[in-house]
Amino acid sequence: MKVVITGGAGFIGLNLARAIVKRGTLTGPSGRPEEVDSILLFDQVVPDQLPEGLDERVTMQAGDISDRDTVFGLVDRDDISVFHLASVVSGGGEKDFDLAMRVNLDGGRHVFEAARARKGLPRVVFASSVAVFGGSAMPKTVGDTTKQTPQTTYGMTKTIGELMINDYSRKGFFDGRSVRLPTIFIRPGKPNAAASSFASGVIREPLAGEECILPVKADVQMALLGYRNAVEGFIRLHEADGESIGGDRAVVLPSRTYTVAEMIEGVKRVAAANNIQLGPGTVKPDPVIEAIVAGWATHSEAPRAEALGLSNDESLDRVIQDYIDDFMPPR
Amino acid sequence: MKVVITGGAGFIGLNLARAIVKRGTLTGPSGRPEEVDSILLFDQVVPDQLPEGLDERVTMQAGDISDRDTVFGLVDRDDISVFHLASVVSGGGEKDFDLAMRVNLDGGRHVFEAARARKGLPRVVFASSVAVFGGSAMPKTVGDTTKQTPQTTYGMTKTIGELMINDYSRKGFFDGRSVRLPTIFIRPGKPNAAASSFASGVIREPLAGEECILPVKADVQMALLGYRNAVEGFIRLHEADGESIGGDRAVVLPSRTYTVAEMIEGVKRVAAANNIQLGPGTVKPDPVIEAIVAGWATHSEAPRAEALGLSNDESLDRVIQDYIDDFMPPR
Repeated sequence: MKVVITGGAGFIGLNLARAIVKRGTLTGPSGRPEEVDSILLFDQVVPDQLPEGLDERVTMQAGDISDRDTVFGLVDRDDISVFHLASVVSGGGEKDFDLAMRVNLDGGRHVFEAARARKGLPRVVFASSVAVFGGSAMPKTVGDTTKQTPQTTYGMTKTIGELMINDYSRKGFFDGRSVRLPTIFIRPGKPNAAASSFASGVIREPLAGEECILPVKADVQMALLGYRNAVEGFIRLHEADGESIGGDRAVVLPSRTYTVAEMIEGVKRVAAANNIQLGPGTVKPDPVIEAIVAGWATHSEAPRAEALGLSNDESLDRVIQDYIDDFMPPR
Repeated sequence: MKVVITGGAGFIGLNLARAIVKRGTLTGPSGRPEEVDSILLFDQVVPDQLPEGLDERVTMQAGDISDRDTVFGLVDRDDISVFHLASVVSGGGEKDFDLAMRVNLDGGRHVFEAARARKGLPRVVFASSVAVFGGSAMPKTVGDTTKQTPQTTYGMTKTIGELMINDYSRKGFFDGRSVRLPTIFIRPGKPNAAASSFASGVIREPLAGEECILPVKADVQMALLGYRNAVEGFIRLHEADGESIGGDRAVVLPSRTYTVAEMIEGVKRVAAANNIQLGPGTVKPDPVIEAIVAGWATHSEAPRAEALGLSNDESLDRVIQDYIDDFMPPR
């Protein structure tokens, strides 16, 4: 079978591809495990060289997800699964509403229509977000039964994607599911346009001996999930039987809540254990970022994800140690 | 100022136009009452002659709401308000998914974009529906804080419209509000493709001496609102201050819950009082209609609507009497 990952050159996309390469099989539209012979990573820009941890089964293609023909060209086999991760992120969507609508709404619809056009019932896994929640009406702890009240265009388009995943699945157009991601950390590389980017930067930059400029105060709380369990969550939800998920295919992933101060303490502990000299951190509040983050849920519960066998992080220190092991150059 | 009513040749649209003609003014983008000098009724088909109760201020235009240029042509003044009622209905959407997406989703987006393109902050009133609720996760009584779990493509597109109304309003693109209609009765004329069509037919057909064929059993419960209060609800929500509605602009209208049996008893009582000989009723369950209706909320609460001054019906008999007075030929 073939696997298409949109947003495949991003952090989660690449690591999802690595995990699928390692597994070798996924449940196909037949409902039985099938060998994955082709993984297509689609993104607006792709690297010149195949990144580490991938092999000859993996191809990369750059293009515009808001172009219908391009998207239909990706989903060109009936024995296929689609992981739809491509998205304008929260901060980016607040800056450019029209781009967020074109990429997230139109692009998503093209992906869903392309999957619908295949024979059989391909599995479609949509990357949603806890940014579907927010605002003054939001309860302190959000979960699978909480009303979606997005406070960003990003969150609005993610909610729309979830609604479409549910309706396309109900209609038997494909077998969809939505993975509601909390903030995923620790992303390697450079900061990105997501308002949550600092949740990785507060650990990543000091570990690299660089300065971290924090756009929020140290008492801000964030619901976080380590990237290993996030990637595993995509795979587990792909593998779960659609009927067992139920009519509402949007599942909140597990998370743990930390303050920024706790994250700073954590990186100090793990750095000391690894003999790493930390770079400095500076708090320099950015009102735009602060406002977006203040609208997010700080606590979530994930009983359905847990019932489906999805794992939460063992500890903050474990996620930091994983990052050092997976992404930092050996010292 | 100008008023555009999409779906303006429909029952609610026409009666809304009549109510605005009678009022003469609405709150304009300025926030002050303005004289309405032009009312445009846009629909896929419009009558040859101006219907009763309208005057020279009213024009009608037929066209396709999924055509962007057409829609931008309607919203051609800055001193404007838009009531967006055009929609493929529940039964129709289940039969033709693509049509529902094109009319309800694409059409709605064109309307919202056209309003956004005007200078100032036009008020946009979107006709949503309690069909945004449904399924096994739905509580017995739905309301403004209930999670939307639509079980029809119609309900899905209405939920998406509400989300866009909220986000366009949050962004300051226009001043939107969504009116969540329960089943509105008693609609004059012929049955339509809405799965709820029988809720009018069960009263209208017998009063006309015609046979009513009921697609559901007599113990089925429906949350209903009379058309007079529905039209008044649109006007009141248009007139309400956006800030007072809050960030979530979707407001459930008041309703009362009746069984089909109670509706049959009601029409018997009111017919007797008016010396009307009733036509026969036959129960002939239609599994498709039964399934759609079974997915709907039977009870709703509307504290926000009530706080904004929107009225509920006095009684079932009053709504039936209104229908006889407003729409039946004098005997």
